[in-house]
Amino acid sequence: MSALPTTLVTLEDIHAAQARIRPTCLRTPVLDVPHPVGGGAPLWLKVESLQRTGSFKLRGAVNAVAVLGHEAKTSGVVTYSAGNHGLALASAARTAGASATVVMPETASAVKIRATRALGAAVLLRPPDEFVAYAKHLATVEGLALVPPFDDPWVIAGQGTVGSELLDQVDDVDVVVVPVGGGGLIAGVAVALKSSRPAVRVIGVEPALAGDLAEGYATGERAVWSRALTGRTIADGLRAAAVGELPWAHITALVDDVVTVSEESIVSAMGWLAANARIVVEPSGAVATAAVLEHRHRLGSGTTVAVVTGGNIDLQSFASLVGSWPTLG
Amino acid sequence: MSALPTTLVTLEDIHAAQARIRPTCLRTPVLDVPHPVGGGAPLWLKVESLQRTGSFKLRGAVNAVAVLGHEAKTSGVVTYSAGNHGLALASAARTAGASATVVMPETASAVKIRATRALGAAVLLRPPDEFVAYAKHLATVEGLALVPPFDDPWVIAGQGTVGSELLDQVDDVDVVVVPVGGGGLIAGVAVALKSSRPAVRVIGVEPALAGDLAEGYATGERAVWSRALTGRTIADGLRAAAVGELPWAHITALVDDVVTVSEESIVSAMGWLAANARIVVEPSGAVATAAVLEHRHRLGSGTTVAVVTGGNIDLQSFASLVGSWPTLG
Repeated sequence: MSALPTTLVTLEDIHAAQARIRPTCLRTPVLDVPHPVGGGAPLWLKVESLQRTGSFKLRGAVNAVAVLGHEAKTSGVVTYSAGNHGLALASAARTAGASATVVMPETASAVKIRATRALGAAVLLRPPDEFVAYAKHLATVEGLALVPPFDDPWVIAGQGTVGSELLDQVDDVDVVVVPVGGGGLIAGVAVALKSSRPAVRVIGVEPALAGDLAEGYATGERAVWSRALTGRTIADGLRAAAVGELPWAHITALVDDVVTVSEESIVSAMGWLAANARIVVEPSGAVATAAVLEHRHRLGSGTTVAVVTGGNIDLQSFASLVGSWPTLG
Repeated sequence: MSALPTTLVTLEDIHAAQARIRPTCLRTPVLDVPHPVGGGAPLWLKVESLQRTGSFKLRGAVNAVAVLGHEAKTSGVVTYSAGNHGLALASAARTAGASATVVMPETASAVKIRATRALGAAVLLRPPDEFVAYAKHLATVEGLALVPPFDDPWVIAGQGTVGSELLDQVDDVDVVVVPVGGGGLIAGVAVALKSSRPAVRVIGVEPALAGDLAEGYATGERAVWSRALTGRTIADGLRAAAVGELPWAHITALVDDVVTVSEESIVSAMGWLAANARIVVEPSGAVATAAVLEHRHRLGSGTTVAVVTGGNIDLQSFASLVGSWPTLG
């Protein structure tokens, strides 16, 4: 990968990504669901948990590997990941005939580790405050091509295809709510949305326990939290210590608001999604829906799309989290 | 509704149904999943649990109510249902501005009863061996239009749109596996498939504990079981005492095989679907996938589509059924 551009990803980059990922990634469905807090405004889900590998991350990984082209095959690829990007990169690399090495924090979800290994990748586990540096070290000393999980224009462009697709799928979108970990998804989605429909409100959501972006967005200066802090949230995919610098540039330019949700709201949203949309969602995948539950007035009115980002969770954890959710109706 | 025709539903009936249901029913996604027992043949799911109201039943109900037209609004509609057809009819009636009365067995799933009432329908509960007759009685004495759950050409044509859609969505289909309760779905799907692609194998699946069709298919004579027998299966949507006479005519003409699955396979398939396709499926919705797990050789080789019919189950039951499913990978 070349040096990061100082400019933002463009709609053309996203359209080029869409063409590259078409053979490999699903155009995921949108589902309309009864609004959980009433009020009559349509609520749609963009269901990336039904994407191959169980998350939107496949889009960015496939785009980045496609751009690497022959280099990926000759050198192999490496990344650091809380899980879903690693799983996605393992899949993208296997499709491209490249070897993949994924460094995950020791706290990564067991189901993500297993699934990544099952795709033929080498998975290395390191402490949460060391795994990022270790992957970068490996890239240098082993000559592997680094495919970062979010701080990368090709990854951002790939994730942006979520935004261009949902504009095709849902009429008259007013508000789009997007989970934020490292910020790659919201960066790409914001470009896709604001380029085509500037009046759309794009809203980022973090767990309050990993609310580094909410803090930075309020002060105007990118905040970096410790992994000890962000590691407290159940949303294992959103424990990045900070958004990346390139995502940050996109977010400050394009995102309308950043809100945080409680751990209770996240679990409640998982149950709500299981009962009302009949999907299995991991905690990180439920935070946009949690924001709809917790912050309906702040998000703004009109047709709302919550992006459901991933569904990789072991069934025992899922069952124990949602099994006590009260059935409404 | 007029008297049952002696002829089978046609592909034209299904195309007409498709046009009628388009504004109301989702074109549900197909998902490709790793084949659970290996072997390399592609396995796709046609995910009707993501249909509005949580099952394929909305298709037939909307088609039948549309054909009734003004009659539905003036007289109101009534049906008997294990749950999903009643829920679907309540939704179709509300959209059409008609009142709906749904008679369910006292053993119906609580979540289906609640959801049907939430759509404004009157739900009456009767013993499992009386609810069908009671609904027919109500139709006569109250002058309500009866929309049967499966023994009806408009309902069969509506359900057949599942088949025409999946042919559009999956290339080179070889085998389609369909759950059977009253037989309306497999009747319509078989017409859609065999009319367009005669070499496709269409296979019906029942719980062994409600295996009336498997028995009848083997002997050549439609079998009727007692509700006491069929009521033993966990698959509450597949407890019909027999397939309807009109579905039976379609099945004997068009279906290639009928297999049964164990209760253990059904629960295992629910867990497999939650872990691998990340969807919440009720027991009835998992039986086609259970057949893929249990009968891979008998089903035949090649590209296989398992129809996932419904996802209406309370989360406590779901959690207790799938929570102990061993994660593979």
